[in-house]
Amino acid sequence: ILLELFEDVHHADVAEILDEVNWDEALYLLRLLDSETTSEALMELDDDVRERLLDSLTPKEIAEEIEEMDTDDAVDAIAELDSAIQEAVIEQIEDEEHKADIREMLQYDEDSAGGLMAKELIRVKETWTVAGCVREMRRQAEEVTRVHSIYVVTKEDVLIGRLSLKDLLTSDTKTKISEIYIPKVDSVHVNDDGEDVAKLMQKYDLEAIPVVDDEKKLLGRITIDDIVDFIRDEAKEDYQLAAGITQEVEADDSIIELTRARLPWLFLGLIGGVGAATIMGGFEDILEDYALLFFYTPLIAAMAGNVGVQSSAIIVQGLANDDVKGSISNRLLKEMALAALNGLLLGLALFAFTALWYRNEPDSLHTALAISISLFAVIIMAGIIGTFIPLFLNKRGIDPAIATGPFITTSNDIFGILIYFWIAKLILF
Amino acid sequence: ILLELFEDVHHADVAEILDEVNWDEALYLLRLLDSETTSEALMELDDDVRERLLDSLTPKEIAEEIEEMDTDDAVDAIAELDSAIQEAVIEQIEDEEHKADIREMLQYDEDSAGGLMAKELIRVKETWTVAGCVREMRRQAEEVTRVHSIYVVTKEDVLIGRLSLKDLLTSDTKTKISEIYIPKVDSVHVNDDGEDVAKLMQKYDLEAIPVVDDEKKLLGRITIDDIVDFIRDEAKEDYQLAAGITQEVEADDSIIELTRARLPWLFLGLIGGVGAATIMGGFEDILEDYALLFFYTPLIAAMAGNVGVQSSAIIVQGLANDDVKGSISNRLLKEMALAALNGLLLGLALFAFTALWYRNEPDSLHTALAISISLFAVIIMAGIIGTFIPLFLNKRGIDPAIATGPFITTSNDIFGILIYFWIAKLILF
Ligand SMILES: [Mg+2]
Ligand SMILES: [Mg+2]
Ligand SMILES: [Mg+2]
Ligand SMILES: [Mg+2]
Ligand SMILES: [Mg+2]
Ligand SMILES: [Mg+2]
Ligand SMILES: [Mg+2]
Ligand SMILES: [Mg+2]
Ligand SMILES: [Mg+2]
Ligand SMILES: [Mg+2]
Ligand SMILES: [Mg+2]
Ligand SMILES: [Mg+2]
Ligand SMILES: [Mg+2]
Repeated sequence: ILLELFEDVHHADVAEILDEVNWDEALYLLRLLDSETTSEALMELDDDVRERLLDSLTPKEIAEEIEEMDTDDAVDAIAELDSAIQEAVIEQIEDEEHKADIREMLQYDEDSAGGLMAKELIRVKETWTVAGCVREMRRQAEEVTRVHSIYVVTKEDVLIGRLSLKDLLTSDTKTKISEIYIPKVDSVHVNDDGEDVAKLMQKYDLEAIPVVDDEKKLLGRITIDDIVDFIRDEAKEDYQLAAGITQEVEADDSIIELTRARLPWLFLGLIGGVGAATIMGGFEDILEDYALLFFYTPLIAAMAGNVGVQSSAIIVQGLANDDVKGSISNRLLKEMALAALNGLLLGLALFAFTALWYRNEPDSLHTALAISISLFAVIIMAGIIGTFIPLFLNKRGIDPAIATGPFITTSNDIFGILIYFWIAKLILF
Repeated sequence: ILLELFEDVHHADVAEILDEVNWDEALYLLRLLDSETTSEALMELDDDVRERLLDSLTPKEIAEEIEEMDTDDAVDAIAELDSAIQEAVIEQIEDEEHKADIREMLQYDEDSAGGLMAKELIRVKETWTVAGCVREMRRQAEEVTRVHSIYVVTKEDVLIGRLSLKDLLTSDTKTKISEIYIPKVDSVHVNDDGEDVAKLMQKYDLEAIPVVDDEKKLLGRITIDDIVDFIRDEAKEDYQLAAGITQEVEADDSIIELTRARLPWLFLGLIGGVGAATIMGGFEDILEDYALLFFYTPLIAAMAGNVGVQSSAIIVQGLANDDVKGSISNRLLKEMALAALNGLLLGLALFAFTALWYRNEPDSLHTALAISISLFAVIIMAGIIGTFIPLFLNKRGIDPAIATGPFITTSNDIFGILIYFWIAKLILF
């Protein structure tokens, strides 16, 4: 009866059910339902849950699930297993072609075109006739969920074009494929960066793109549904990085996992704070006369941090979308102008407030001026650091996305407070 | 000769060329090339650039471009125009059906299913025969770039299913569509949130989904390429919001635009800083004896900010992906445990450092203890605020994404410093 219930349910919904029932029930269902249903559902589960579920199965049982998966999903699932049992699972796969494909694909980087592609596609040789082609296609189509495109290759498997279904159906059965194929086809290299593949598919509105090696041999193809997942994951990663969270974690992960992702950045902040305290200690001699200066250090640190994060966020996104044009020095000049404008407005506002608020204290105008001018200088510096660091990292081939959030805030706290006291002292003495 | 050059170029590449040549050249190209080429290229351009280009054309010229666009793109382009010329442009559209579609679609919210859909699709009536259906389809297909699915509707245009191309081709020409269609089809309501549509299409790996109204009448369909654009835009918006940038701006926007997007959040930070300074002013009486406490306020503010941003980022993302389960109080308890663990580790580290570093100063152990215990308390408070605010906003129907970055940092700066001095004073006196 339970089996019948599950018959018509989409695998993404089976996944949701598996996620919601308790552990033993999930395992029971996994063993009860045939692997055609469960293998796809497994791939829709959150990584952690899938990993833990698979860990409870024997290599033989895992292999049965893997057997039913498309190659791209199969590789992802195997890559998550402990390396100790990976080989045992692969050994248990019965389909020799599937096994070989998986072994090959395990070598590619997860975030490269090779890591995103699947082996399942329709491929026809240019030497075939239309009749032979249709026969072969029927056989291949059994393994392919959605056809999208028919790829044409040479005898050596080199990708040379694609075939329109219409041309295929309207041509005489004895026509050679080489006479009717379309020689224009987009493709990506197996080592291309996943981000670049996503951009290309987005730019040309593609639903699938073939993947080739150095000799242009057809290795696989990437479909848009996996690109959608990829884009979401990348965006999540960058968002978390900007908030000071290193590993991909979810709200439901364990406290240990969450601590491991968060503590390093907090520790960085601690070091920055100690640095700021040390700098302030160096200005202890003016503490008695100008206590007000010290009261405004959190404001300075906050503004330095906020401006730095804003600048770096815009640069990081611009770099990701390839729309940061022009030289670094032009970019810095623009950011300086922008920071100067913001700094002027904010400095004036702060001056007006402090001059009024502390008007009964001795030397208040002088102090208000010192604080406001220092704020102005700190904002300009924060904009420059926020712009320069991601550009610099990018030039050095490091992902600029790490240079937002706590990284920028911390460095700007230190530099901000240093500059603030230095300029304030210049003005006051 | 120029015309020939552009003949084979993909419209996305034409867009890139338009973006790179200077202004007059772009306008010249726009007028020279036929609108079939340029209308699609226009839609690939950055919003700002397209808007400025279209502003230089006459309503008649704009209408010619619009005429060639799919309805979804046409509506987007018109919505960007000054409201004064919108009506003039619509008037100039010659195709009456296109005109009516555009007027209807202008009413839908940009980020709803109605704002994402296009009118172009293949629709067949259940009462038709296969032969009539094929004839009608041929006519409709002229306007549709990619078929994806054939939707089956009743006489009243109510969506009741879809048709497989295979069934259509293998059935007798006199068969009624009602006998061969598949009565199962996913659909979304025209007022559904774009994010939900994106999640649905991602979950079921759909490449197109039909859009219906209250009476289930078929209004249009959404294709995956537009969902990909939508997902990217939303991610960009959230990323910028978390960095304290309100409008969607790019690195290449003008200084005025960038200031307008950034200044409000900076001003918020200014107010927070003034608040912190006022609090510190209230503790002026202990300044002489415990200057060290004041030196560590930037550290406290930084840690309160970082912890708050981490907590809120995880909650905001969890809410977006619907994986924040359980009650608010459970969530707060978990975050408190997490913050307690982090706070303990960081507090210990800070105590070890300050106790050692200031060991020669009077009362140093006592002060070190006060600072560290206060840090511990501040971290727990920061975690709670960072968790509570987005959950609260979400409950009230406000987008929790605004509750990250400067918003959390500023409130945590104030509360953090207040709690810090309060607890430190309790310990020291
Ligand atoms: Mg993979
Ligand atoms: Mg696109
Ligand atoms: Mg498009
Ligand atoms: Mg796939
Ligand atoms: Mg990235
Ligand atoms: Mg996880
Ligand atoms: Mg801060
Ligand atoms: Mg729209
Ligand atoms: Mg999916
Ligand atoms: Mg999938
Ligand atoms: Mg479209
Ligand atoms: Mg949003
Ligand atoms: Mg813009």
